[in-house]
Amino acid sequence: MSMVTLSRRSHRIQPFHVMALLARARELEAAGQDIVHMEIGEPDFPTAAPVTEAGRAALAAGETGYLPAGGLPELREAIARHYADHYQAPVDPQRIVITPGASGALVVALAMLADPGQNVLLPDPGYPCNRNFVELVDARPRAVRVTADTDYQLTAGLARAAADPRTAAIMVGSPGNPTGTLAGAADLAGLAAFAEERGVGLIVDEIYHGLHYGDPPAQGVVHAPGSIIINSFSKYFGMTGWRLGWMVMPAEWVPVAEKLMQNLFISASTPAQHAALACFGDEARAIFESRRAAFRQRRDFLLPALRELGFHIPGHPDGAFYLYADVSGLTDDSAELAEALLDRAGVAATPGLDFEQTAPERHMRFAYTTAMERLEAGVERIAQLLRAGG
Amino acid sequence: MSMVTLSRRSHRIQPFHVMALLARARELEAAGQDIVHMEIGEPDFPTAAPVTEAGRAALAAGETGYLPAGGLPELREAIARHYADHYQAPVDPQRIVITPGASGALVVALAMLADPGQNVLLPDPGYPCNRNFVELVDARPRAVRVTADTDYQLTAGLARAAADPRTAAIMVGSPGNPTGTLAGAADLAGLAAFAEERGVGLIVDEIYHGLHYGDPPAQGVVHAPGSIIINSFSKYFGMTGWRLGWMVMPAEWVPVAEKLMQNLFISASTPAQHAALACFGDEARAIFESRRAAFRQRRDFLLPALRELGFHIPGHPDGAFYLYADVSGLTDDSAELAEALLDRAGVAATPGLDFEQTAPERHMRFAYTTAMERLEAGVERIAQLLRAGG
Ligand SMILES: Cc1ncc(COP(=O)(O)O)c(C=O)c1O
Ligand SMILES: Cc1ncc(COP(=O)(O)O)c(C=O)c1O
Repeated sequence: MSMVTLSRRSHRIQPFHVMALLARARELEAAGQDIVHMEIGEPDFPTAAPVTEAGRAALAAGETGYLPAGGLPELREAIARHYADHYQAPVDPQRIVITPGASGALVVALAMLADPGQNVLLPDPGYPCNRNFVELVDARPRAVRVTADTDYQLTAGLARAAADPRTAAIMVGSPGNPTGTLAGAADLAGLAAFAEERGVGLIVDEIYHGLHYGDPPAQGVVHAPGSIIINSFSKYFGMTGWRLGWMVMPAEWVPVAEKLMQNLFISASTPAQHAALACFGDEARAIFESRRAAFRQRRDFLLPALRELGFHIPGHPDGAFYLYADVSGLTDDSAELAEALLDRAGVAATPGLDFEQTAPERHMRFAYTTAMERLEAGVERIAQLLRAGG
Repeated sequence: MSMVTLSRRSHRIQPFHVMALLARARELEAAGQDIVHMEIGEPDFPTAAPVTEAGRAALAAGETGYLPAGGLPELREAIARHYADHYQAPVDPQRIVITPGASGALVVALAMLADPGQNVLLPDPGYPCNRNFVELVDARPRAVRVTADTDYQLTAGLARAAADPRTAAIMVGSPGNPTGTLAGAADLAGLAAFAEERGVGLIVDEIYHGLHYGDPPAQGVVHAPGSIIINSFSKYFGMTGWRLGWMVMPAEWVPVAEKLMQNLFISASTPAQHAALACFGDEARAIFESRRAAFRQRRDFLLPALRELGFHIPGHPDGAFYLYADVSGLTDDSAELAEALLDRAGVAATPGLDFEQTAPERHMRFAYTTAMERLEAGVERIAQLLRAGG
C-alpha cells in the first residue's frame, strides 16, 4: 500500500455508476446472452468512408508530426466556412481553436474561467463529466435543477436564482445529454445577456449540433457570441475515437486558449485534423445527413413506443440521440429497473444516477444508437418484462 | 472587450518565449532565407512505415470508436511485454493506463497528486510545460536548482532541502529536456525512498527512454516502483502527432487514473492505439534503432563541435536529442545570442528563458533533430558568426 496521499480532488471525482452495468452487460454477452444496447452515447456508425480515406491519405503522406497548438489552419478555416454555409453565421477562423475532443476543449475552457473556491452552474440533469471538469480546477459544481418546464434547459431566470458573487461560469448544452432537448434562441440570448451582465463566463456545449430532428438549435456564435462554444467531430461527424473537437471564443481569449492547449496537450491529433477536413465535403455531408435521417426515424419510433409503455418523457427531445424518461410510474428505483431490464430482458439502459442529483431514482436514459430492428426488439422485451410485473 | 474575468491561473501560465523566435524563423524562411533548425523538440523522422501501415489498416477496419478509458487491452499488454523484453522488468498490464500523449498523462498525474496550496518540486532547468501542469491544479511549482554536479538531475538530497510539509509531489525526467542527461539507478532509488518516506508522489517522466547513447537510463518500474511513470509514443517511437502516451503506477491507483481519464478525455485516440501495436514488432524496432544510431552520430558530432566553439556543455548529455550549453563564455544574454544566431547566421536555437529560472541568460538549448549535413552547416555558420565577433 502506497503511503502517498492522493489529492482531495481524486476522491471528489466519482466513477460513473453505469460502469458496473456495462461490466454486467459484457458478462452476459460473454455468456451468450443477446443484449440490446440502449446505453451507449456514441453513434453506431463507423467514421464515414471519405473521412477515413482522408485519414489514410494523411498517414500515407507522412502527416504525423505535431501541429500548431491552435490547430491546422485549413481546418480552422473549414470550420469557419461551415458556420457560414450552414448557419449563416460568419466566424473568424482566428476565433477557432482545435482541441482533443470536446473533452479537451472543456478542460481548457474551465481552466480559463474558474478558480478554486468559485462555483460553476450546471443544469441538473446534465452531462456527467461536466462536474468533474469543474472539480479538476477546484471550483465547485453547482447543480441547478432544470425541468421539462424549460425543456431541461438552463435559463437566465434559473441562473439568476442560483448565481452568487463566487459564480465564475455557467455551462449549458443544446441539444442536451441526457435529455435530447434544445435551447431556444431567446433563452440562449437571455442567458448570454445574464452572463455578460454578471461578468461570468458562459460555456455552450454544441457537440450534438447537426443532430436535430425538428428546427435546428439556436447557434451560440449567433446568440451568445461572447461565450466559449464547444463542439466536436465526435457525434454528427462520427469521429468519436479520433478525439477531435474545437472551441469558438472571443478573439481576445484565443492566445490564452492557445497557451493552455500548448502546455497541456501540445496539439490535437494530426491525422485526425487532416481527416476532419473531409467532413466538409459533399460526399461526407450526404452520409451524415442520411445518418441523421436514421436517427430521426429511430427517435420517431422509440419516443411514442416508450411513452406507450408508461415511460413519461416530457418536453421535446428533438436532438442528439437520447430520451430521458421519468420512470416513477413504473418503479421507485430506476437503478433497480435498469438492473431488471438488463438481467431479465437483455436491454441495457442507463439509470439517472450519473446524470442528476435531484431525482436520479426517478429517471433513466435511453440512447437510440442502435439499429431500428434492435430498438424494436428492445421495446418488445421491455413490454414483456413490464407485463410480467416489473 | 469581454467583461468576463479570466481565471488567475490564466495569467500565471506563460506562453513560451521561443514562440516569438519561431515566428521570426518562419518569416525569414518565407522571405527565402535558409534556416538550420536546432530548436525543434521533435524527431525529424516521420512515423515509421510499419506503424503508419497499422494505422491505415485500423482505419480501413473501422477502428474509429471510443475505447475503454484505460486503453486498448492489447496495447497495455504489449507495453508490459516491452518492459519485460527490453528492460527485464515485469510490469502487470493492469498497472498501465493509455493516455493522450505524455501530456495527457501529466494532466492526470498532477490531478491525482496535488491540491491547491500544495507545492510540487521541479528540477530547474526542466521541461517548460511541467510548471503549468502544476498551475492547472492550482498547486505551486517549486523550482529546485540542479547543476552539472548531479548531471542536472534532482536527487534525494536536493529534494530534502527543498521539500516542506506542503510538498505534494516531485517531478523528474530522465533523459531530461533540455539537458539530455540521465538519472542513475542509485539517484532514482534514493529519490523514490525519499518520496516514500515523506508520503509524497513521485512522477518520473521517461518520454525519452529508448533514446540513450551510452548506458541505458535507470528504469522507474525497477528503481521507483511506487512512482507514477510517464511515457509516450512520441519520441523513440516517432509518433508525436498521434498524441499517445502511457503511465505506469501502483495498481491501487489505476481506478483513480481511469476515472480521471474517462471524465477528462473519454479515451486516447483509437487509430493511434491500434497503430502503436506495430511499434513492438521487429521491423519497427529495427527502424527505431537505426534512428537512434543517427541521433547518436549527430550527438557525437555536435557535442565536441559546440564545445570547441566555446559553448560550455558540462555533464553527460547521453540521451534525448538535446544539448544544454552554458553560453556565458560567449555572451551575457542568451536571448540576444539566439536572436543574432537566427538573424545573422540562419540558425535557430532556444534560449534558456523557457527552461529555467536560475540563470536563463546563461543558457541555450540545441536540438539535434535535423540531418547531419544540416548540423554541420549550422556549426559552420555559428563559427563564422562568433569569428565575426558575435
Ligand atoms: C454533452 C457532451 N459533451 C461533451 C462530450 C465529449 O465528447 P468528445 O470529447 O468525444 O468530443 C460528450 C460525449 O459524450 C457529451 O455527451
Ligand atoms: C520532457 C517531456 N515530457 C513530456 C512531453 C510531452 O510529449 P507528448 O505529449 O507528445 O507525449 C515532452 C514533449 O516534448 C517532453 O519533452
